[in-house]
Amino acid sequence: MDVKEVFKSEIAKINRVLSHSLSVIENERLRSAMLHYPSAGGKRLRPITTMLVANAINKSGELAVPFGVALEMVHNFTLVHDDVMDNDTVRRGMETVHVKFGLPEAILAGDALFAKAFEIVGNMEIDGERKSRLMTLLAKAVLVLAEGQQMDMDSEKLSAVSSEAYLKMIERKTAVLFSAAAQGGAIVAGAQESLQETLFEFGRLIGLAFQIRDDILCLRGDPKETKKPKGSDIRNGKKTLIVIYALEALSDDGKADLNRILGKKDASEREIDEAVAILESAGAIDRAQRVASEMIARAKILLDDLPSNEYCNLLRELSDYMITRTS
Amino acid sequence: MDVKEVFKSEIAKINRVLSHSLSVIENERLRSAMLHYPSAGGKRLRPITTMLVANAINKSGELAVPFGVALEMVHNFTLVHDDVMDNDTVRRGMETVHVKFGLPEAILAGDALFAKAFEIVGNMEIDGERKSRLMTLLAKAVLVLAEGQQMDMDSEKLSAVSSEAYLKMIERKTAVLFSAAAQGGAIVAGAQESLQETLFEFGRLIGLAFQIRDDILCLRGDPKETKKPKGSDIRNGKKTLIVIYALEALSDDGKADLNRILGKKDASEREIDEAVAILESAGAIDRAQRVASEMIARAKILLDDLPSNEYCNLLRELSDYMITRTS
Repeated sequence: MDVKEVFKSEIAKINRVLSHSLSVIENERLRSAMLHYPSAGGKRLRPITTMLVANAINKSGELAVPFGVALEMVHNFTLVHDDVMDNDTVRRGMETVHVKFGLPEAILAGDALFAKAFEIVGNMEIDGERKSRLMTLLAKAVLVLAEGQQMDMDSEKLSAVSSEAYLKMIERKTAVLFSAAAQGGAIVAGAQESLQETLFEFGRLIGLAFQIRDDILCLRGDPKETKKPKGSDIRNGKKTLIVIYALEALSDDGKADLNRILGKKDASEREIDEAVAILESAGAIDRAQRVASEMIARAKILLDDLPSNEYCNLLRELSDYMITRTS
Repeated sequence: MDVKEVFKSEIAKINRVLSHSLSVIENERLRSAMLHYPSAGGKRLRPITTMLVANAINKSGELAVPFGVALEMVHNFTLVHDDVMDNDTVRRGMETVHVKFGLPEAILAGDALFAKAFEIVGNMEIDGERKSRLMTLLAKAVLVLAEGQQMDMDSEKLSAVSSEAYLKMIERKTAVLFSAAAQGGAIVAGAQESLQETLFEFGRLIGLAFQIRDDILCLRGDPKETKKPKGSDIRNGKKTLIVIYALEALSDDGKADLNRILGKKDASEREIDEAVAILESAGAIDRAQRVASEMIARAKILLDDLPSNEYCNLLRELSDYMITRTS
């Protein structure tokens, strides 16, 4: 599945609403900082999830577009602020917002993207009850995201992280927006509470798998496709699921070799290749891919609760894409 | 009027809801950073405005408390982020959040306070239509705040600022939350659109007057009461309404004397006294106080649209307090 080809018209629609919403920001400098990431493209997987769910339930995908755009804004707001917190200088091959516009502007642009997300939902053409539910969903998601980011920062100081703690962290940092995307589509479509909950869980599973695949691509992917330097997670000393699995499987010597390179900011390409080889030999990357695949299998079973139609089929394809994607 | 005495029970109620809402944040470090400013007290003028308006219309002040608390959270979120942007190290005699907890924690705590505000409104015991209106009001207010903060940062680079530009800036940075407070109370009470608009304007006027009085207290106030170092605006080179009026009235020599001290970070107490004397002699502080008084007079006329009852009288007293307060 090539997401960009299959969902060409949806992505175009999302991008139109997205840039129109931001074009009304009066202050030129603030507007440019807010547009920096959203206008650089992206797969728009969260809005697509929202639209597909709403369409699968009762063809209300069009109505759901603004909520998808709101999610995309929240996603971008967290990217802007996370880049400040992590002191990252490059994203998607571009300067990060705080590098290009300055720290105050990055904080402010993030805040304004966040506020804009709620304003967009407030202007949707649905009843107040549903708007209020969507906004509450969004607010709760951001609270969870913030707790996830704090957990991530806390975990950097720990010497060992369990796979449970890692999954809990990415559930908060990544999966929650996919949960909100799927449940939000169901809210727009007026689905019952139980179906909303099923879709929240569906989003959680595809979101977790998405993040695990991300970690895998950082090691096995082609940097030209992923637009990330190979092994950056290793240089940053990230205790991903893959690293946790490897440390479980390796001998003391193997562990020592891995730990020597892990977190070495100036590790050479050769050292990165060596670390990747250790992770491969421990079977850790394959194991992570298997775990992600199991999540996707469980996610697809949940889709049986939806009417079986073309949109439901596309949701299945989208689920598979989470663990087969190369970019 | 002693706000803290008159509204003792309201303030206690607001503080209870405020601290209970934040006590559920799981991550200890994040929770402490979020609580740092709100738990240090404050006059709670925004929530009091909301409660009084809702009570004046139809005694729905109790119902309106959570919206007031949401405003207080938004207010505190902007304080946390503004302190980072302005690189301030002290607020209310305490270390600022980023100094005490670190930059990443300050960004995150602000974001989480913002999200929490929406969650609180989402949990209010009113219909979805009103919740959605309140959340949209809050979102629009934050967008305006962000534009105001950007204007403020932009204006620091300008050599001259007009009184119109200054009023436009404080309308965005300060008055908008008072507007939201008053309109929000009206929304909770189920008031008609036209009364909502009147109260938005009422909030704007008392908010502007509040800020002008703040600028005055920075020069004339007793630092023990204001909890701000005397003349900090002068050291920071702020082009307040007072400075703008003075530059209009002063001779070239007077202007030169003022400009020599304005923005001098290490100005001595004597220099600050000298600058204050120049501003006084130009009649600029009195003029600013007169402008604020006119705003309050106009604000009180707008209250004629409310039922005349004890709460409406308290709103009049609250309006006067904005320009008579000494702390």
